[in-house]
Amino acid sequence: MSFKLTVLGTSSATPTLSRRPSAQALVFKNRTFLLDCGEGTQLQCLKYGVKMFKIERIFISHFHADHYLGLMGLLSTLALKGRTQEIYIYGPEGLQELIETQLRLSEAYLTYPIHFIILSMDGTHTIYEDKFLEIKSIPLAHRISCWGFLFKQRQPYRKIDKEALKHKNVPVAAFKALVYGRDYIDESGKVYSAKELTYGLPMKSYAYITDTLYMESVAQQLQGTDMIYHEATFLHELYENAIRNFHATALQAATFAQVAATKQLLIGHFSARYDDLQPLLDEARSVFPNTLLAEEGKSYET
Amino acid sequence: MSFKLTVLGTSSATPTLSRRPSAQALVFKNRTFLLDCGEGTQLQCLKYGVKMFKIERIFISHFHADHYLGLMGLLSTLALKGRTQEIYIYGPEGLQELIETQLRLSEAYLTYPIHFIILSMDGTHTIYEDKFLEIKSIPLAHRISCWGFLFKQRQPYRKIDKEALKHKNVPVAAFKALVYGRDYIDESGKVYSAKELTYGLPMKSYAYITDTLYMESVAQQLQGTDMIYHEATFLHELYENAIRNFHATALQAATFAQVAATKQLLIGHFSARYDDLQPLLDEARSVFPNTLLAEEGKSYET
Repeated sequence: MSFKLTVLGTSSATPTLSRRPSAQALVFKNRTFLLDCGEGTQLQCLKYGVKMFKIERIFISHFHADHYLGLMGLLSTLALKGRTQEIYIYGPEGLQELIETQLRLSEAYLTYPIHFIILSMDGTHTIYEDKFLEIKSIPLAHRISCWGFLFKQRQPYRKIDKEALKHKNVPVAAFKALVYGRDYIDESGKVYSAKELTYGLPMKSYAYITDTLYMESVAQQLQGTDMIYHEATFLHELYENAIRNFHATALQAATFAQVAATKQLLIGHFSARYDDLQPLLDEARSVFPNTLLAEEGKSYET
Repeated sequence: MSFKLTVLGTSSATPTLSRRPSAQALVFKNRTFLLDCGEGTQLQCLKYGVKMFKIERIFISHFHADHYLGLMGLLSTLALKGRTQEIYIYGPEGLQELIETQLRLSEAYLTYPIHFIILSMDGTHTIYEDKFLEIKSIPLAHRISCWGFLFKQRQPYRKIDKEALKHKNVPVAAFKALVYGRDYIDESGKVYSAKELTYGLPMKSYAYITDTLYMESVAQQLQGTDMIYHEATFLHELYENAIRNFHATALQAATFAQVAATKQLLIGHFSARYDDLQPLLDEARSVFPNTLLAEEGKSYET
């Protein structure tokens, strides 16, 4: 397990008695990332054991009310509780203005620095990377600028292939180079090939794709992603409605998963018109069997 | 019964698992008024049967996050559901900027007009009146500009005093004048006194007082108000804390009720530190026995 996803909200535009607006907490190596922050997210964190203080980076897919309205409340609560650790917020232009306007009107201040990173609609970009993790923003097709996010595990080390090692007399000094994927050449000029003697570990990945029309190019780009969350606002019988509102259907989410050849599809962002979500799940599974409904409070691991 | 109050939120600064931030719905003659609009108010309305479409006027006590953060979500949802009826919002300067900034950043629009009424910290003002109702804003003492609200029923008609009528031969034509409180003079010059022949009905009233230091002058001004909601953020043992944060204690809320000689005190806006609210209730009742805890989802009538 590399990524643990806790779903905090699965409703589209308006909340219902059983579904809150979009938000997800993604935990990776004890670091927490928040994906969207609909109204009430701070309370959902409290309810489902997501430690708000651990949130390191927040990603806002777009500037629609059901995706960002909880941001100010969450930031305020962190300040009231005395957070000092900086926080990074990725999203559309204007988030900084929104927060600063509210702080000015409230005559309030935050106890920690925020770094705002404005996303670009001009292609996919790596917006964060370190030795263990890479995060990309992927432009989607919604009424306003909107991005999906791809989280990819990185592993700076390779595993020594004990089988390949058996009949080779590899000097101890070679291992440090080999695990980093570099060949080692001893004093006599003999080459120990990292490619032959080591193998890479499987790297986990998770993609968050909402709100958007069906985009085959994005699905292709996400080839082999372990788990994908894709919006499924409507049943396909409301395809016209989906198009008009720049949303996708359950069938399209499943087709997306199929094209991306993901292992696991989660669907969410359900229209408030659906009390019973089973038909959406059935529809998606007819195309992509390994589909699950994103359920609030539930965690999914990959 | 003239006013029916439904409490939607009773927490102070940060929400807890059992308490949401400030919001109340006050229903008067099938008209709904919203007092404060903390994060998640739209969902609380849904949960507790407050019809959002019926909200005619919204009153924001001040610009702290726990009192206004739900406003944009509620207004967005009303627009998504196609409201066309205008809405009036009373509060501090900047509410219009806040809403307009968010609409601009979201590239969204509302389907109905909003009238913003900026309140004045310079004394008590009648901010709304019609034949049946008068609403006043009352400056409070908080860290930033903050107002309480007084709702007073008006009754344009007086009741005919059947006892007083018994031995007087009042002409039918007189009644219309009398019920409006005007004397009637018949053709012979005989005077029928409205004061003698009619009586006024008891007029109900409700005051919403949060967030504030204890203000005796306001209590005096609210003399005889039928029901008062007063914040009781802390137990009196945390009096210093209350003063420092411009809040009141349960004891002070009760003293306020006593000075105002109200019939019913509701306390709320409880600090997140209190899981058990009984000590706050006990403390208030030691001074003012007719105190109730404001409980989310519960309705109170006067």
